[in-house]
Amino acid sequence: MADVAQRAGVSTSTVSRTLRGLSTVSPEVRARVEEAARELNFAVSRQAASLVTGRTGTVAVLVPTLNSWFMGAALSSLAPLLRAAGMDLNVYMVGDLAARTAFFDRLPARRNADALLVFCFDLTDEETTRLDNIGMPVIYVSQHVEGRPSVYVDDVAGACKATRHLINLGHRRIAFAYTVGVRGFSFSSRERLLGYRQALAEAGIPLDEDLVVTTPPRDKRGTTQAVGNLLSLREPPTAIFAEQDELAASVISTLRTVQIEVPERISVLGFDDQLMAEWLDLSTVAQSPSDIGREAAELALELINDPEADRGRHIVLPTHLIPRGTTAPPSAPQGERQANGHAEGRRV
Amino acid sequence: MADVAQRAGVSTSTVSRTLRGLSTVSPEVRARVEEAARELNFAVSRQAASLVTGRTGTVAVLVPTLNSWFMGAALSSLAPLLRAAGMDLNVYMVGDLAARTAFFDRLPARRNADALLVFCFDLTDEETTRLDNIGMPVIYVSQHVEGRPSVYVDDVAGACKATRHLINLGHRRIAFAYTVGVRGFSFSSRERLLGYRQALAEAGIPLDEDLVVTTPPRDKRGTTQAVGNLLSLREPPTAIFAEQDELAASVISTLRTVQIEVPERISVLGFDDQLMAEWLDLSTVAQSPSDIGREAAELALELINDPEADRGRHIVLPTHLIPRGTTAPPSAPQGERQANGHAEGRRV
Repeated sequence: MADVAQRAGVSTSTVSRTLRGLSTVSPEVRARVEEAARELNFAVSRQAASLVTGRTGTVAVLVPTLNSWFMGAALSSLAPLLRAAGMDLNVYMVGDLAARTAFFDRLPARRNADALLVFCFDLTDEETTRLDNIGMPVIYVSQHVEGRPSVYVDDVAGACKATRHLINLGHRRIAFAYTVGVRGFSFSSRERLLGYRQALAEAGIPLDEDLVVTTPPRDKRGTTQAVGNLLSLREPPTAIFAEQDELAASVISTLRTVQIEVPERISVLGFDDQLMAEWLDLSTVAQSPSDIGREAAELALELINDPEADRGRHIVLPTHLIPRGTTAPPSAPQGERQANGHAEGRRV
Repeated sequence: MADVAQRAGVSTSTVSRTLRGLSTVSPEVRARVEEAARELNFAVSRQAASLVTGRTGTVAVLVPTLNSWFMGAALSSLAPLLRAAGMDLNVYMVGDLAARTAFFDRLPARRNADALLVFCFDLTDEETTRLDNIGMPVIYVSQHVEGRPSVYVDDVAGACKATRHLINLGHRRIAFAYTVGVRGFSFSSRERLLGYRQALAEAGIPLDEDLVVTTPPRDKRGTTQAVGNLLSLREPPTAIFAEQDELAASVISTLRTVQIEVPERISVLGFDDQLMAEWLDLSTVAQSPSDIGREAAELALELINDPEADRGRHIVLPTHLIPRGTTAPPSAPQGERQANGHAEGRRV
C-alpha cells in the first residue's frame, strides 16, 4: 500500500480509504490512486479492509423475483447510485416460502451488508421483528411498515383513481382482477383492492363480490378462468380493472379470442404503465419503479452514513392515471347490446 | 464458535464450513449448526472466514442492464442455484461506456468474488485480455469468446430460421430491424444480422441494404423513423423481421397507427418469445434465458470447485421458431394491393 501511496503522492490512509470505496475521497484523488494501483497491479481485499472499518461496503436487497418489470426497473436505477457511492450490490432472491424461511433462519449468520432493502414482501410480524434485530438499517421498498423506513407508491390512491375513471365514464358493473401467488408476496394487490372498494363506496355503488376475481401470476389458464367467471355472470361487467398491466394484457388477449371488443364491449384498465402498455394502447395507472429505486438507494446511503437519521421515515410516491384506448363509456344500453346478437345474450 | 459446535454436537471446523456456506456440509448437519447458531444469536463474518479460506463465497455478475426481460429471466434462474450452493450474488451493472471504463479500470482492485459472469457485452480484445488476468474464472454469457467458457444461444441459426420461415411463406422483400445502443452492447444483434443475411444468400435473394434499418432501444420515435424508412421505399417490404420481441411490438404498434394490417399487408416476426409475444399473438424465435442462467450458474460452480475443469467449454443452447398470427403469406400481387387504394400507392 505504501508503494501505491508513494506513486500516487498521497498518504497510505488515503489509499486505504480510496480502495475501500469511501465517498470522502475526491474524484481527482481517487483517479490518481486507482491509476497507481493499476500500474502496480495492486489488489486490495475488501474483506481485509472491512475487518478494520466494520463496514462491508455492500448493500443487500431481498427480492421475491428478478423476473419482473418492476424489479428490473427499480434495480436498474438503484444499482448505479450504489456504485457511485462505492457500494457493492448483493441480491438475495427469495422466490418461495422455503427459500424465505431459510433466509430468515440464517439471518443471525449474516453480517455481510451495511443495509438491507426488502422489496415487495407481505411480512409477518415475527419476520419484521427479526429484521429489526439484524444490526443494520432495513428499508422497506414497495411496501410500508409502521415506524420503519419505507419507500412506496400509494397503491390505495392509485387504484382509487383507476376505479373513479371507470365510474366517471359511466360504468357501474366494474370488475377487479388481481393475481394471487405464494402467500405473503402480494402486498400491493391487497392495497389496490382496498382502493377499488373505496372508490365504489364513495360513488355509492354496492360491492358485488362476484366481480372480484383472482388468478395465479402469469398463468394463461388462470386468466381465462377468471375472465370466464365474469362472462358467465347473470350481469357481466362492462369494465375490468386488472391490478397489473401484464394481467390486463392477458385479459385483453382472452377477450379477443371470444371476439369481445375492447373497449366497445368491455373496457380494460391496468396498473403500472410498463412499456408494453403503450404498445397495447392500454389505459393504466402509472407508477415509477425507477423513482422508487432511486429513493430507496438514497435512503439506504443516508441511513448507513448518518446514525442520527430519522429511521421511521416514509417516502410515498405518486401515481397517475394514463387514459388510453382501452377504456371508453359503456357503449349502449343492455337491450341494444343484446340485439347485436353477441355472446352475452344469455343474461336476459 | 466452540459454543455453537458444542450445542450442535459437531466439530468447530464443521461449524466453520457450514457458516462459510460450503457445499460439503450435509443438509442435516447444516440445519443443526444453523439452529444452534440461531439460538446463540451467533454472527459469523464471511469477511473473516474468507481471509482463512481465500474464498469469498460470492459470484459476481457484470450486466449492461437489469431492466430487460432477458436479464430478469436469466438472473431469476441463476440466483437460486447460487443460493443453494451457499454463494452470494453480487451484481455489477455497467450501463454506459463511462461505467464500463471505470469497471475495467478498477479490476486490479477487485478480489471480491470467486467467479465473474459477463453478460451480453461486445468486449474489445483488450477488455478480454484484462479479464483473463483477474485471477478468477470468467464465464461469458449470451455471447462467446474463443477459448473461454461461454454460454449462449445460437443467434445466427435462430435468425436464419426466422428469415427462412418468411422466405418459405413466399416473401422476397424482407426487412431486418435491429436496435443499436451504446457501442459494444449489442453482441446478439450483430449475430442475428448475420443469420438474416445467410438465409437470404441461401435462397438466392440479393441483400438490399435499404431493407436493413436500425433504431435506438425502446425509442418510439426511433422505431417510427425506421418503419417510415421502410414504408417510403420504392418497393416496401412485405415482411419485417425485428430482432427482439419488444422491437416487433413497437413496429406493430407503429403500423397500426397508419392502418397497415398485420399480417395482411405486412408480416412481422420477433425474436425472444417473451410472455407478451403470446398476448400479441406474435410469431417469433424462442430462446430460453432461464436455461442460459441455469447453465451459466452450473458452469461457474464447476469452475470454482474444480481447478481441472475445461476452461474453454462452449455451451450452445437451441432456438425454436414459434409461428403465430403475425406472419402469413404475402396477400396479393403488387397490382391488386395498389388497387386497394392504400398508402403504398406511391410506389408505382
